Order: sequence, then structure tokens, then C-alpha cells
Amino acid sequence: MRIARFSIDGNVAFGAVEGEKQDELVLDIIKGIPFADFELSGTKVPVSKVRLLPPVLPNKVVAFGRNYADHAKEMGNEVPDAPFAFFKPATSVIGPGDEIQYPSFSQEVHHEAELAVVIGRLCREVPRERVKDVIFGYTCANDVTARDVQKREKQWARAKGFDTSCPLGPWVETDLDIAAAQDLTIQLTVNGGQRQLGRTSEMIHSIEDLIVNISEAMTLLPGDVILTGTPAGVGPLHVGDEVAVTIEGIGTLTNKVVKRG
Amino acid sequence: MRIARFSIDGNVAFGAVEGEKQDELVLDIIKGIPFADFELSGTKVPVSKVRLLPPVLPNKVVAFGRNYADHAKEMGNEVPDAPFAFFKPATSVIGPGDEIQYPSFSQEVHHEAELAVVIGRLCREVPRERVKDVIFGYTCANDVTARDVQKREKQWARAKGFDTSCPLGPWVETDLDIAAAQDLTIQLTVNGGQRQLGRTSEMIHSIEDLIVNISEAMTLLPGDVILTGTPAGVGPLHVGDEVAVTIEGIGTLTNKVVKRG
Repeated sequence: MRIARFSIDGNVAFGAVEGEKQDELVLDIIKGIPFADFELSGTKVPVSKVRLLPPVLPNKVVAFGRNYADHAKEMGNEVPDAPFAFFKPATSVIGPGDEIQYPSFSQEVHHEAELAVVIGRLCREVPRERVKDVIFGYTCANDVTARDVQKREKQWARAKGFDTSCPLGPWVETDLDIAAAQDLTIQLTVNGGQRQLGRTSEMIHSIEDLIVNISEAMTLLPGDVILTGTPAGVGPLHVGDEVAVTIEGIGTLTNKVVKRG
Repeated sequence: MRIARFSIDGNVAFGAVEGEKQDELVLDIIKGIPFADFELSGTKVPVSKVRLLPPVLPNKVVAFGRNYADHAKEMGNEVPDAPFAFFKPATSVIGPGDEIQYPSFSQEVHHEAELAVVIGRLCREVPRERVKDVIFGYTCANDVTARDVQKREKQWARAKGFDTSCPLGPWVETDLDIAAAQDLTIQLTVNGGQRQLGRTSEMIHSIEDLIVNISEAMTLLPGDVILTGTPAGVGPLHVGDEVAVTIEGIGTLTNKVVKRG
């Protein structure tokens, strides 16, 4: 099932996405919240009549660095022996169609297409064989990065945590099992031209590795998001660009870059 | 005014702390929430009858590294030209009297006494002269750090973000102006023995600098917390230790270290 979060007439709801053609998608409104027991209401609205929101409002976004060897190489970095993680704050999250605001303190903002794992239940110290049970589903993410600031500042709160630096969406796909999620094409285009192309099978540390690693240290909550690293091909975004992350079996997350107002 | 958050009989409330002697403190229960207009109810409960909670539930905790020259030096680091920040997640926050759980993945957990600034209103791109207007008050913090993990992992999500690594409290002091907050004695004891001693006047980058720096990149929300760095004297904590951060004019934050259960 594909679960979107949306607003219509000032109300916010979750809905199950039905249909295949982008122009004809319909949302079946969910009664309750998708992390607990829920049912479909049968009341349907066309996607074209609503505003899609970030599919979850995470308490925290945990992002892993250098998890594709070819990206580590293009940045001139060693491939790390163990995963390492940083946070993006809730205030950085935007949804599909929302604008990425080019920040005033950077002259070099890059795109980074990533598979995002959405956590479904409160958990900590998750054993490898239980990882699949704590995953709610998967969505697309863009780990937008002020590359010049990242190079200057030892920790990346500003470089990777500025407002609008974490587009998520368009919805959460809950029907992928973990083996399938680990073998998907991930690509990114800027103004229609391909910039990044990879497969999630190329991750150095698997989805299971990453969730074991982070949950060893901290409690994960329903709606928390794990970003799993970006393949090679990262590059600059400019004001006016339209950037799109497409992951096989999930969908496409599109955002336009504007000057911060 | 000193504003505490507490639970009594399963209910959570804010209260104004009255009295000076630790054993005789009383809470005047607040009607409403302290970030907006509120009034005191006149209904009073002794602090000894309640459980104090973290004085705020931050959406994000932004912490600055190496902001006291003598601490940078003791760690063998250069003093940075510009501030740099990292995040501690909401799941790391505990209150006064709560237990610091020694994590399973570290053998070297350190204390770091810090002045915590609590934000009072939604803000971004705060000009220097307006910083004082966005501050709700001040409390004590312990930026508990897995030093061995911090040395191994390039970004510090696990080293400084593990569960219970962010004790805050005992309450928020709202009567200090920013000049007064920038000139307070800060000290930390372990089992009664002094380990850290400094003055907030020794910060390399002032409270104003830090809030200008971070709000340039991201929106701050009421209840967000800014940690302002630690003076020299950091050192190990062991299971069974009682660690106490005392800041002049604010109070004492005490926590015991236990094995993670």
C-alpha cells in the first residue's frame, strides 16, 4: 500500500493511494493513524485536489554518510569501516512539490538522492532478524547539502540541517519487503537531465546494518526516518532548478529550488 | 522566575518554583503554557511531592563544539574560527534526578557541563540585537559523550545522541538577562569532587553569536535548546557515579549513572 499524508480544506489526513497514472491517482482516506490499526474509509479524493505533505512528521531523521563506495570516491573520501550517522532536524523536512529554499550562507548546494526507511514502531537495540518488523515502509529523500559549509564546519548541523534541506515523499510504500528494498534503482534528475543513478544493492552497509547500528544507541519512534546514503553523481543545484528523485517501486519526489525569501 | 515541569499523580504541569532551601521548595502551578501568556494558579505543591521532568521537551537540541579555549586545548584541538554545531535528539533528553544509562557500545563516557539556552519563540535569521527577545531562559545541561565513539566516528550522532545523553534541568531561570547569563560560574562535580570549573564569560563565541549562527540556517521553535559548549575538565563517568552541574543563579542538575538495563 502507498500511504500519503495530505491537506484538503485546511484538514490533514492520511490516505491510501490508488491508481497508476499520475493524473488519475485517488486517495482513500484512512480512519485512524497508519502506525496503529487503521481502516480505509472508502471516501475518496483525487490527488489533484489535495496538497501532498511530507508523508511522515519525523521526531528525528538519522542520515548515514558515505554508504555507497562510488560516492565516497567521488568526494575523495575513504570508505568507512563502520557506518557513521548525523541528524537532520524536523524543521528541515518538506514534502513533494514544496520548494527547496537556497540558503543565504552557502554558494554550493548539492542534491543527494537517498532511499528513506520509515520506522513503524518504538524500538531500541533491534536484533538483525527483527529489523524487518520495525520498518513501516520506504519513501524517497533528497539529502540537500550545503557542500561548501560541509567542508568548512566539522559537524554538519548547518550544512545538512537548514530549513527545506530534507524533502521526503511522495508517499510511503509499505509493500516492499526488506530484500526488495535492498535492490532498487535510484535515480535523480535536474531539469530532466540524469545526474545520479545507482542501485540500493550497492550500499556498503545494508538497511539491516544501519538500523542495528543506530538502534544500539538510541530509541527509534514511529515516523522516524533513516536515510541510507547517496550513490555517485552528486552535484550543484541552482535557483530555478527542478530536482526529482525516483526510486523503482516507490515513486518520484519532485521539488523546485527557489531563493530563500 | 524559575519554571519547572513536573508530574504528579500521572498529570504533567508547569510550575513556578518558590523558596530558596532545597528541602522547602514549592511549585505554584501554571495555568496555560509558559511560552505563551500564562498566570499562576495559586495552587501550590511541595517539590518533594512531585517528580521533576526535563523543564522543556525540545523539538531539537543544537549543541556547539569547542566553545571554551581551555577545553579545545585539553582535547588537543585547534580553537575553531567559526562556531560549529551538532544535534542531540529529543530521545536523548532526561530530567533532574533521572538516570544516565551507560551505553553498551562505549567504554569511555564523559561528562560535559554546559549552559543551556531555552528558546521562547519561533524565529529564524535572528539579528544580533534581537537575540535577547527570542530567549525564554536558561538551564543546566550535561552533554554526556561517548568519547571513544566520538573519536572513531566522523559525525557524532551515536557518540552524543544516545538515550539519556542529554540531562537538562532542574528548571528554567527566566530572570537572567543575556549579559548576566554570559558571566556565570559553571561547575561540575562527580561524587562531590570538583571536575569542571569555568565562567560563561570564557566562551569563544557568545550566546548572541551562537543564536545568530544557527538561526541563519534553521528555524528555532519554542522549547528548542542551544548548548553553548563546555569548559575544561571533562572526564570519565562510571556506573554508580553521581554527577552534578551547578550554574550560578540557576541551580543544580544531578543525575546518577547506571548500567543500561
